[in-house]
Amino acid sequence: MEGFSFSTAVTVRFAETDAQGIAHHASFVVWLEVARVAYLDEFAGGYQAIRDRGLEALTTEVQLRYHKAAYFHERLTIWTRCVGLRGSRFRYEYRITRGDVLVAEGHTSHAIVLRDTYRATRVPEWLSSAISKAESASS
Amino acid sequence: MEGFSFSTAVTVRFAETDAQGIAHHASFVVWLEVARVAYLDEFAGGYQAIRDRGLEALTTEVQLRYHKAAYFHERLTIWTRCVGLRGSRFRYEYRITRGDVLVAEGHTSHAIVLRDTYRATRVPEWLSSAISKAESASS
Amino acid sequence: MEGFSFSTAVTVRFAETDAQGIAHHASFVVWLEVARVAYLDEFAGGYQAIRDRGLEALTTEVQLRYHKAAYFHERLTIWTRCVGLRGSRFRYEYRITRGDVLVAEGHTSHAIVLRDTYRATRVPEWLSSAISKAESASS
Amino acid sequence: MEGFSFSTAVTVRFAETDAQGIAHHASFVVWLEVARVAYLDEFAGGYQAIRDRGLEALTTEVQLRYHKAAYFHERLTIWTRCVGLRGSRFRYEYRITRGDVLVAEGHTSHAIVLRDTYRATRVPEWLSSAISKAESASS
Repeated sequence: MEGFSFSTAVTVRFAETDAQGIAHHASFVVWLEVARVAYLDEFAGGYQAIRDRGLEALTTEVQLRYHKAAYFHERLTIWTRCVGLRGSRFRYEYRITRGDVLVAEGHTSHAIVLRDTYRATRVPEWLSSAISKAESASS
Repeated sequence: MEGFSFSTAVTVRFAETDAQGIAHHASFVVWLEVARVAYLDEFAGGYQAIRDRGLEALTTEVQLRYHKAAYFHERLTIWTRCVGLRGSRFRYEYRITRGDVLVAEGHTSHAIVLRDTYRATRVPEWLSSAISKAESASS
Repeated sequence: MEGFSFSTAVTVRFAETDAQGIAHHASFVVWLEVARVAYLDEFAGGYQAIRDRGLEALTTEVQLRYHKAAYFHERLTIWTRCVGLRGSRFRYEYRITRGDVLVAEGHTSHAIVLRDTYRATRVPEWLSSAISKAESASS
Repeated sequence: MEGFSFSTAVTVRFAETDAQGIAHHASFVVWLEVARVAYLDEFAGGYQAIRDRGLEALTTEVQLRYHKAAYFHERLTIWTRCVGLRGSRFRYEYRITRGDVLVAEGHTSHAIVLRDTYRATRVPEWLSSAISKAESASS
């Protein structure tokens, strides 16, 4: 997808559906997290590398727009990019597709904090440069 | 809370926490739904009244901004109002508080569809007037 | 219910249903936890009282037999009793009812561990006597 | 693993952990379902093939024994076999491993029902013979 160099796939689990017969809208929020973890695995040594340094990435905002229903067992692609690193903050943008169809799109915002105090702290240099490198490769 | 006449309460379940030691951000999305269901119970005969007429309310957008972490067993208040009914669409706005503290805020957008075809259809008169009545009482 | 002196109630959330139109079977496992937390609130100062002493109660077994489907928005009663304290271990038994109907029944087993090392440790005296007192009152 | 010819893998999601820092015990119940779906994909045309014939497989029992904690991002193998087909009923058995370590084991029981009435009905011939073939290949 234009503007996105990374994607990961999820298959809709039965437990993720609801009585409307479709994937529950909160399931998508979990999938975005799965995509972020896969992104960090690919480009920055994994989320555990962040945790191992006594840091956590908190989620400070979630926004999702649902265009199409998703159904049990469908394989969805989650296009993911990380943008807007500044100080302790950064943001991911997503497009969720099924084949050529745009199923949903959205973004999440995050802040790096010290695990012990939950105080915001600058995104570490190794992480910001890993992300910059990943994203510059895509343009 | 000013501008909100309805609220419901949830207590953070242990299953809703994550390894950061806080309520997982996707749990909040489920609580918004709990609040909508409680709102419809109070003002419009329950969500089942919608389903009994062969309709479903799809969620077309979710947006949440997290200001504070929420912890296991905390009792949160979800202030809820329904605004912007137009055609098949309407929107809920939320503030989630713990005592005087604003924990999160956001909105969701919805569309009424026919269950069999998933086609958008006008919000039925009984529902829109129930909501108008509920919300005019609050101002 | 005979043999049970404690119960708590849950209302089936829409997010807890699945595409079979019923409450997903994993939702029941979460409800059992809600019931244990309510039980400890009632009789032993809450689960947090256990955590505040540097302990955790791990779940070592879950068993559930489903007799009837549960549906969105139904109010279920979870009858709960704690039995078989021995050393670091104890067990809860449950009956889940909707009015007079037995919807499900099962048990869970638990072990008290030190949070820092995850080593099993004796159920503390204050907790075992609180449970004994609660359960002797029921017979 | 001896006695099991089929396995599928899951990676522990962050959303599946809890404030004990480990995978929540209800997450395992969802993974067993993921494994059953993968099993049916492999041997019987998928769970959708069952649904497409107007049938559902209800879960009538879950039993899980947890031997070790599982942590965020760990890759677990779910060994799965289907046994004991009789009338409308069948049963799956599972071992969940991380490398050589047995993390959990358990079983689930199921009944085939007609979707419209939820009445039990015989496991269809095509499904029982697909399962028999899969399991005889493993011994």
